[in-house]
Amino acid sequence: MPSNDVFAAATAAFATYKTSPGDVRAGFLRAIATAIEALGDELLQTASAESHLPLARLTGERGRTVGQLRLFADLVADGYWAEATIDTALPERQPLPRPDLRRLLLPIGPVVVFGASNFPLAFSTAGGDTAAALAAGCPVVYKAHPGHPRTSALVAGAIAQAAAQCGLPAGVFQHVEGGPAVGAELVQHPAARAVAFTGSFGGGKALFDLAARRPVPIPVYAEMGSVNPIVILPERLAAESAALARQAAQSVLLGVGQFCTNPGLLFVPEGEAATTFITELEAALRAAAPAAMLNAGLAGNYYQHLAGVVNHSAVQPLVQPAPHELEGGPGLARTTAAEWLQDAALQQEVFGPFTLVVTYQSAAELQAAVEALHGQLTCTLWGTAAELAHAAPLAEALREKCGRLLFGGVPTGVEVSPAMTHGGPFPATTDPRSTSVGTYAIKRFARPVTFQDAPAALLPPALRDENPTGLWRVVNSELTQRSLTPS
Amino acid sequence: MPSNDVFAAATAAFATYKTSPGDVRAGFLRAIATAIEALGDELLQTASAESHLPLARLTGERGRTVGQLRLFADLVADGYWAEATIDTALPERQPLPRPDLRRLLLPIGPVVVFGASNFPLAFSTAGGDTAAALAAGCPVVYKAHPGHPRTSALVAGAIAQAAAQCGLPAGVFQHVEGGPAVGAELVQHPAARAVAFTGSFGGGKALFDLAARRPVPIPVYAEMGSVNPIVILPERLAAESAALARQAAQSVLLGVGQFCTNPGLLFVPEGEAATTFITELEAALRAAAPAAMLNAGLAGNYYQHLAGVVNHSAVQPLVQPAPHELEGGPGLARTTAAEWLQDAALQQEVFGPFTLVVTYQSAAELQAAVEALHGQLTCTLWGTAAELAHAAPLAEALREKCGRLLFGGVPTGVEVSPAMTHGGPFPATTDPRSTSVGTYAIKRFARPVTFQDAPAALLPPALRDENPTGLWRVVNSELTQRSLTPS
Repeated sequence: MPSNDVFAAATAAFATYKTSPGDVRAGFLRAIATAIEALGDELLQTASAESHLPLARLTGERGRTVGQLRLFADLVADGYWAEATIDTALPERQPLPRPDLRRLLLPIGPVVVFGASNFPLAFSTAGGDTAAALAAGCPVVYKAHPGHPRTSALVAGAIAQAAAQCGLPAGVFQHVEGGPAVGAELVQHPAARAVAFTGSFGGGKALFDLAARRPVPIPVYAEMGSVNPIVILPERLAAESAALARQAAQSVLLGVGQFCTNPGLLFVPEGEAATTFITELEAALRAAAPAAMLNAGLAGNYYQHLAGVVNHSAVQPLVQPAPHELEGGPGLARTTAAEWLQDAALQQEVFGPFTLVVTYQSAAELQAAVEALHGQLTCTLWGTAAELAHAAPLAEALREKCGRLLFGGVPTGVEVSPAMTHGGPFPATTDPRSTSVGTYAIKRFARPVTFQDAPAALLPPALRDENPTGLWRVVNSELTQRSLTPS
Repeated sequence: MPSNDVFAAATAAFATYKTSPGDVRAGFLRAIATAIEALGDELLQTASAESHLPLARLTGERGRTVGQLRLFADLVADGYWAEATIDTALPERQPLPRPDLRRLLLPIGPVVVFGASNFPLAFSTAGGDTAAALAAGCPVVYKAHPGHPRTSALVAGAIAQAAAQCGLPAGVFQHVEGGPAVGAELVQHPAARAVAFTGSFGGGKALFDLAARRPVPIPVYAEMGSVNPIVILPERLAAESAALARQAAQSVLLGVGQFCTNPGLLFVPEGEAATTFITELEAALRAAAPAAMLNAGLAGNYYQHLAGVVNHSAVQPLVQPAPHELEGGPGLARTTAAEWLQDAALQQEVFGPFTLVVTYQSAAELQAAVEALHGQLTCTLWGTAAELAHAAPLAEALREKCGRLLFGGVPTGVEVSPAMTHGGPFPATTDPRSTSVGTYAIKRFARPVTFQDAPAALLPPALRDENPTGLWRVVNSELTQRSLTPS
């Protein structure tokens, strides 16, 4: 089995990489960023040729990719993320003494990462999952996405170069090519310790099932997309129907609709303002030219799923693009909340530049629709300040359904920052306890370990008495930067 | 389905309890502790009658139970555990502005808790899992353990009284009786959001499989026990063979061996000191009288699993108790590391006062044995200071296998404190990313949610600009207690 060699190298690399100091990992992540930048235009040209994404978009995506590598570098150079916690010994305590206990989050081992087609850089080879796993101290076995093999190989080369430059073993990052059978083999390998995935529901759920049925189950963090509803309240719609329609259209059309956070569902109150909103939305979508999607397979899926919705008996098509082998044409349809509530199939994601307007008759009907939503990456609530002041129950219902709740702007555009959650309840992900964007993503690849009465030399440096870097730790229930050595 | 009523009540309770302030939850947890104490001797007498555990032990266990309720009360009154994180808006940033992003860990919803037979108080009705779930803001559906139904009902009554006293809905904690079919129904109910379990591998793994196969999978935190190896290095053994044998014997015998952290495997170097150690261990175990186990079923399993080990062709029985319908008699056997490495069946837990001595011939053989260990709650390494100074690779190999690594003392006795990890790799648990003892256990029942550009009134108080309690938060990557309101 070829995966045996891959995991032998990953396991060997883990033996040293897992105890590497934070600044070594930080140096590695920064070196990867620099090596990616050094690939220059060749990387952008290759990615554009393979994905049909424009150079301007890919330039931005490269910035995001190297930016998040450097953000994780800062995170691990500091070390606070690992939640160092110390309970000092209480030898005189009655009825029993308390031992010395010290806990830290430590890396779990080799992680299998599956890249996404729609972000050949930021969610792929050196994307957020890879950055988070390497930051945590875990080697990465990367299953290259077949949609952009040459882009992936270029980035893998940059990572290999960075590893060599930092004196790290080649097994710290390995690039594996192949089809679904190869991916399944990697997930089932006994030495794999976790899986990260961004892609379709079918793909992510299949990996989750495989991992749960292993003799030793392992966690799967699959981000599987969602329909990202935007809910518009009556007064806000009445006040800004045309402007809101243009804003929604822009988000639907962005990147030919190929974002996990693309708004595929728009709830608007029935009435005159809704008519204006829909008219304006329809005009904006009709005005947009079809554009190349990532690949012919995605375009085929887009038109197939689109047909499933617009041909639904309860749905009225408004903009129905003619199928094309590669280009995605904008699509729009409408239905009522009463009809939408009757059929969960209308919640299915149509990955591409399509959205479904759902008109509601009352606040109660809207609340019922929100409560019927499946798990989402994002939910968005647009209301006037006065409306939002009375919207707590609705906002809370939306909050229960998602990982990120927006009250302004559009869901597309996911900030890479400490406070981001790009995750959410199933089926948006297979694990709502996490995020795949932002620094909190590092916690997916670590587990707590407690050392009891350990000699200093056998403790991770973050748990030793001396605290030369002023690391923030919880010591006897108090958050402190102090050292435990008598001064 | 009767579970529909149960989950309707739990879901209704969640609607208000999830947003209850930390001090309300803290008050509830403290009221439960007080109500349990008010049950007085009746609780201890009932628990002793049902479990055969002595009153002194149950008195201690009650202290632990109310102590951990109060520890979680302090934790949630403070609020730091929920990792409040804020990235303030950067409206002028180029090329794109940054929105205001605020993240908090929020409760996941109704939790199904299964109690343990061996801790009728501390790991049962109002035990650590219940305390952690209630602290996180999750209602608990508690499946009563059939081994101590009256004890469980008494404690459930105390919780109900505390809920009423605090003005909380009765659905915040519900006590459900029944057999395995009832438990399975609870785990499969659509409104269940997580499962916590302490017990056997068979029981825990079955719940894990059920939960993974739900239409919407949910996490299962099953603590399924382990053999908790103690590894003794040559110089330490030579210096203290008799004393170490007595210490090990005491841990093996404690509570008739009915602890998840009972040391069921002792690795000692072959030679004269091992002979002394084994002789002393044998004497200590022979001197101990058989004592009542928790119930006849456990006693039956004990003798059955014991027979499986001591009748193994590669194992030499040293102390072989005669089976008894309720009492567990101490048992001891020995084998060599070479033999032990040949058959993974010798790693099976024998739940009761039994341990297997495994003699090793060399450091290399010991290292191989440690690397072959299955996942453990604890591993213990006893060596002289000089030995430990050179034991980093061995200590690291043990660390990989467990949730808690001890260098002094015995694994029995699990401190309830912030730095504790009572967890570990499969099959010790179904989820190594957690603990079921200590305050870190609260994180099992929460998930991150990010609010983007939210009006203050729709933010959880911990994320608002004002920070009246001086909560520690990460604001723009800096840990601070400050308020964000202009002073």
